[in-house]
Amino acid sequence: MATIKDVAKKAGVSVATVSRAINDKGYVHEDTRKLIDEAIRELNYKPNEVARSLFNKKSRLIGLILPDIRNPFFPELARGVEDEMQAHGFRLIIGNADEQLDKEIDYIETFKLNNVIGLISASTNAVLSQYKSLSFPLVLLDRTSEEHPSVHADGYAGGRLAARELVNRGSSRITLLKGPVEFQTARDRFKGAVDELYSANVEFDVMTTASFAFQEAEYWAKELFEKYPDTDGVIASNDVVAAAIIHEAHRVGKKMPEELQIIGFDDIPFSQFLYPALSTIRQPAYDMGREAAKLLIKQINGEKLESKRIQLPVQFIERQTTRKGDHHD
Amino acid sequence: MATIKDVAKKAGVSVATVSRAINDKGYVHEDTRKLIDEAIRELNYKPNEVARSLFNKKSRLIGLILPDIRNPFFPELARGVEDEMQAHGFRLIIGNADEQLDKEIDYIETFKLNNVIGLISASTNAVLSQYKSLSFPLVLLDRTSEEHPSVHADGYAGGRLAARELVNRGSSRITLLKGPVEFQTARDRFKGAVDELYSANVEFDVMTTASFAFQEAEYWAKELFEKYPDTDGVIASNDVVAAAIIHEAHRVGKKMPEELQIIGFDDIPFSQFLYPALSTIRQPAYDMGREAAKLLIKQINGEKLESKRIQLPVQFIERQTTRKGDHHD
Repeated sequence: MATIKDVAKKAGVSVATVSRAINDKGYVHEDTRKLIDEAIRELNYKPNEVARSLFNKKSRLIGLILPDIRNPFFPELARGVEDEMQAHGFRLIIGNADEQLDKEIDYIETFKLNNVIGLISASTNAVLSQYKSLSFPLVLLDRTSEEHPSVHADGYAGGRLAARELVNRGSSRITLLKGPVEFQTARDRFKGAVDELYSANVEFDVMTTASFAFQEAEYWAKELFEKYPDTDGVIASNDVVAAAIIHEAHRVGKKMPEELQIIGFDDIPFSQFLYPALSTIRQPAYDMGREAAKLLIKQINGEKLESKRIQLPVQFIERQTTRKGDHHD
Repeated sequence: MATIKDVAKKAGVSVATVSRAINDKGYVHEDTRKLIDEAIRELNYKPNEVARSLFNKKSRLIGLILPDIRNPFFPELARGVEDEMQAHGFRLIIGNADEQLDKEIDYIETFKLNNVIGLISASTNAVLSQYKSLSFPLVLLDRTSEEHPSVHADGYAGGRLAARELVNRGSSRITLLKGPVEFQTARDRFKGAVDELYSANVEFDVMTTASFAFQEAEYWAKELFEKYPDTDGVIASNDVVAAAIIHEAHRVGKKMPEELQIIGFDDIPFSQFLYPALSTIRQPAYDMGREAAKLLIKQINGEKLESKRIQLPVQFIERQTTRKGDHHD
């Protein structure tokens, strides 16, 4: 069984330096830290982390709560968080709340009890009292709040953009799918699209999709064509729902984009493989994850945040579910 | 701040019972445990888990390592594990190894250091020495090994089935995509398909895809049609790769299924939304996750395992990338 002395010897540094590195107390140069990390790994050295975290009240463990890992948008977010955390020597553990309040609360407690030193939550219930009583920093991801630092994409601009692109490309009977009302991000998107459609004086219907989840997307798609068979343009609440709508449009015999244009939201990896390939409003999921990680690390290090609320831009990705544009902008 | 006495009072049980439940020592009836759990939640009671796990050497925390959460097959596995664990009062934390050896080793260490009481790994490197030195039970998921209990789908039968369906439906110049050689499951699938094609006396080419990852699927798809432009049947290494092949087939103008049949592997949720909808060999991912969780729980509870190696059946899902079958079986 390797000891701290073995690690120090192998890394060519003093025991005190190894101890500083392991316990995250005091300065250790990045290169030195690397040598120590390598030695620890090669020797399979195991400091008693539990005992350590009891006395030092410090670990390098970060928690991440995702609302639904089956929606490919969230794994993208997670990879961004993870890569940034790993680059800074933190460890990330993930909890999947599966859009269930109970599970979300459970994960907050799990992370607390296991002494994480920071939490990033892309959860649906950021107003929970459980988030208020944390003794470590919290960053909200893909969610916003007045109380906590947050990273999100500009949903309002995204909603406007989606509506503008559809109108510019000739849709005149638009159906706007409204995401779950409890998400600020969904509300922002919706508001943006509504504002744009009003100012363009275009007719539209609204259909509410009470969840972003996969298993329900097919249901919304069927309902859409039953309720609004004449629609010639759909602004979907996200790409998963848009994929289901494309599939249903084939079934009912709608030509895309000639008879029906569709715009998604997110740009998940699958969207490019759909047929026709999905035009969508891209959220920079990976970058959002990285930014959230940076914001959390700053807080952990006691640095002052220049901005508590980071908003990243969205972008229209033109593929084949929209017609070639008669660009006015 | 709630105390253990408050919890006992609220749950209508003795402090000793609450203590037994929290510390997982001795028998507590499931119904009583539920009452206690509810009281703990309502009162927001926080036992000092770290101190507890130091003395009791026991927590209810389980670790799960996934190789790549961007491939939708793995979130399905995770949900199965999670639901089963939650039903039995365990907590699950997830690590995403991102197909990187370093990250995988890191997660094993993280879980060890945080006193998980069991580990499920769907990782790519199950032969690692790090898995051998664990002091708690391990179950391999979607992987097999001689040394550890494991749950996997019958890849060999899946490979045979995919080949048989393609041949029965008229493909005669088949391209067989071989998944990463380091996966036993990929080797089993491949062997099954090869055996079937040999015995049916059908010509076939083999192309190796060195990864199952999303970002590379497009590359394999392009390479496929460059190398084998005349192929009329593709057995893809998984559904992600199959999705990319469908997309590429549209681009090069192949009619599916008339000129080209494609069979995937996994049946991820997206496969039904592809166009044409993907015919595939279904692995029961969610059930595999649940079985792995059951196997781990049994070990944690010290029960004898009736079988160390659980193999679940696969199933052909007929959709639109295969012709209507002239069924011989």
